[in-house]
Amino acid sequence: MRTSNFYLFPLKENPTDAFLASHKLMLRSNMIRQSATGIYTWLPLGLIVLKNIENIIRDLHKDFMIQELLMPTIQSAELWKKSERYSDYGKEMLRISDRNKAELLYGPTNEELITDIVSKDLRSYKDFPKILYHIQWKFRDEVRPRFGVMRCREFLMKDAYSFDTSYENSYLSYCKMFLLYLKIFKKLGINALPFEAETGPIGGTLSHEFILETANGESEIFYDKTINDIEFKNIDFNDNEKVKKLILEYSNYYSKTSEKHKKKFFEKNVKLENRKYSKGIEIGHIFYFGTKYSKKLNSMFLDNNGKSNFIYSGSYGIGVSRLVAAIIESSYDEKGIIWPAEVAPFKIGLINVRVGDNLSTEYSENFYKFFKKKYSIIYEDRDIRLGQKLNIFDLIGLPVQLIIGEKNISNNNIEVKDRKSGKISLISKDQIEDYLKKNYEF
Amino acid sequence: MRTSNFYLFPLKENPTDAFLASHKLMLRSNMIRQSATGIYTWLPLGLIVLKNIENIIRDLHKDFMIQELLMPTIQSAELWKKSERYSDYGKEMLRISDRNKAELLYGPTNEELITDIVSKDLRSYKDFPKILYHIQWKFRDEVRPRFGVMRCREFLMKDAYSFDTSYENSYLSYCKMFLLYLKIFKKLGINALPFEAETGPIGGTLSHEFILETANGESEIFYDKTINDIEFKNIDFNDNEKVKKLILEYSNYYSKTSEKHKKKFFEKNVKLENRKYSKGIEIGHIFYFGTKYSKKLNSMFLDNNGKSNFIYSGSYGIGVSRLVAAIIESSYDEKGIIWPAEVAPFKIGLINVRVGDNLSTEYSENFYKFFKKKYSIIYEDRDIRLGQKLNIFDLIGLPVQLIIGEKNISNNNIEVKDRKSGKISLISKDQIEDYLKKNYEF
Repeated sequence: MRTSNFYLFPLKENPTDAFLASHKLMLRSNMIRQSATGIYTWLPLGLIVLKNIENIIRDLHKDFMIQELLMPTIQSAELWKKSERYSDYGKEMLRISDRNKAELLYGPTNEELITDIVSKDLRSYKDFPKILYHIQWKFRDEVRPRFGVMRCREFLMKDAYSFDTSYENSYLSYCKMFLLYLKIFKKLGINALPFEAETGPIGGTLSHEFILETANGESEIFYDKTINDIEFKNIDFNDNEKVKKLILEYSNYYSKTSEKHKKKFFEKNVKLENRKYSKGIEIGHIFYFGTKYSKKLNSMFLDNNGKSNFIYSGSYGIGVSRLVAAIIESSYDEKGIIWPAEVAPFKIGLINVRVGDNLSTEYSENFYKFFKKKYSIIYEDRDIRLGQKLNIFDLIGLPVQLIIGEKNISNNNIEVKDRKSGKISLISKDQIEDYLKKNYEF
Repeated sequence: MRTSNFYLFPLKENPTDAFLASHKLMLRSNMIRQSATGIYTWLPLGLIVLKNIENIIRDLHKDFMIQELLMPTIQSAELWKKSERYSDYGKEMLRISDRNKAELLYGPTNEELITDIVSKDLRSYKDFPKILYHIQWKFRDEVRPRFGVMRCREFLMKDAYSFDTSYENSYLSYCKMFLLYLKIFKKLGINALPFEAETGPIGGTLSHEFILETANGESEIFYDKTINDIEFKNIDFNDNEKVKKLILEYSNYYSKTSEKHKKKFFEKNVKLENRKYSKGIEIGHIFYFGTKYSKKLNSMFLDNNGKSNFIYSGSYGIGVSRLVAAIIESSYDEKGIIWPAEVAPFKIGLINVRVGDNLSTEYSENFYKFFKKKYSIIYEDRDIRLGQKLNIFDLIGLPVQLIIGEKNISNNNIEVKDRKSGKISLISKDQIEDYLKKNYEF
């Protein structure tokens, strides 16, 4: 993509009506635009990041044979009355009346609808287990929408639902999703930890929040920092015993949100140097339900003796749009965003220092044409000040900048700037691809 | 994907509450499920097709440097009052009141919002031209939702918007989008033609509908069938003169919807053997606005003399979810759907004739493992009747079926069934890849 064509109109100054760093930076870098209270448009730069995150989540679900469907945003109130949750959500639920006065609502979550759907398809024990997910916009009419897309009203959520024939199998699905979430967050380039949590209006008997530690997060967390030593990367999801053992290992480390925190126990059982009191942002939440929803919605299957039983279920959410802000909160500096390479809108920012110069222009154009199919590149080809060019790429957080200047090019060199460290290296033209591969794993 | 794991629960009989073929077939093949009047869930099989279509549309927009953004589903009523369209949509617009009694609505289209967004970014003539699009769910509270996803309430639309500095430039954007639409429909494997049309509540002075001819379509069309002879495939979008010339060529052929049809003119000017009176489904609609919206919303730019001018715009819609049904309407038989290969949920259906048989099972498993990364394959690995296996793949419309039976395999042969023609060929095992490449362009 060339900046001369890309829809990118960053603000020169931080907006004064935003307080959280991620909110300021997303507005300033032209990623989002508010159109109504707590309702945002994702501008092209923001949407690329949102889609990158969505695709990482989608690909990992696919790898584990979890199938995607897509439920609508608007639901009928009927199922919510059956589950007795129609009143639970209170004013946070956006209630709608259509032209025929039918009671509708904008889905804040989908337990009822998915339970109703599968109960029409999964009839025999042979049809189990199944885990289904969708990535769809949700609406919660927050009393005080704030912090940009961190706590907005219309937000993108990935929600998965597991269906099993017994407690034992359902617990196993829960454990697998627990590990899948750790894998997803790792792949996104962030370190989110699991915390025992309250179940809230979604309900159930077992629940974990996945929280990304940040200085200004809204969640208080208490944990044993050696939980980070647990190795989960190479776990085989088909080895049920190993999966359960690993979850047991996690449960042996103290890690609780404030609602579950027990101060005395924490201080007695975790060594002082390992105790962490901190703040963070909830980016995932998983729930084990047992037969809570299937009983309310009469969702049953025939077991191998021909007997009817209630289906066991769980639900597993990731705040996709919130993740964009959360990742920024955990990774920025005074110049702007510092994206993990995995989710960056472009991996490489290519800068032609001076458009009027033949040497740098020729090299930049050729480099862009040659590598644009291979790497994700944004090419600064405009005739604007060099300082402005550098500032924009720092602001939008590209992992690496290639700065093509006349003098360096005539010496067969390229200036390579690492966004995170700020380090500038002079790399020989014919070494550049090797250098990028080695240092950025593109 | 293995059928033993895939979420696929087709109905044995056609549902009795659906009348249109596409509606019946989508329900029967487990592509969609209605959850409220005119509101559908896309089950895994349906979602794959929807995403295939979405991605073809997205890729072609990207090729032409048209940038994607994503506007929210819920909009504030404010901008619609400014444009004086708040009342135009009448009861079709789903109006919502939030917890603070603010007037919101579920967007039926996005002219107001996008005009508001770009007017904050595109300030100078240097920032033009720009074409932006999004693929987002819309809601229209139809008085009589019917025909499944053909005329439903919550539907997926791709809507693009062009912004230019003059009539001349804006007309050129319109022409380019006109040709892009022809390219998109061609790529989707269907023959949709452009028809002069009324502008309706969206407004403007110039408008074309793109209609796919089907026996049971709701649109009446009148055209000169030699319009199909126009060659547009190799047009270079950067050659503005050629682009305009080609559009002129289209306008020289008679092609009108019933609202624009002039019987006498048609009969006088089009030879009897070329006259087509037919029916079809509207799958795309494009509009030229001029300054209609920018004047209402005060959306201006500075020209090269530093003078303020109104922005020129146009809008360009494709009914993405409707396309799924429209394609079926144009391509099915008594056994089920016949997907064009481009949008088929899987390109190849691999059938192990008898699971108990070692030869066929070994070959099927190896074939699946070897080719699943390379081709889009669904592998029927269940122990069910052969007739049922064949019926399901016919129903869900896979372009080609590979039938692996003991006897043929022992003679080094595979039975290959072409869904469209029904033709069965016996192909030697070592020729199979060449055969698929040659006949199906996978």
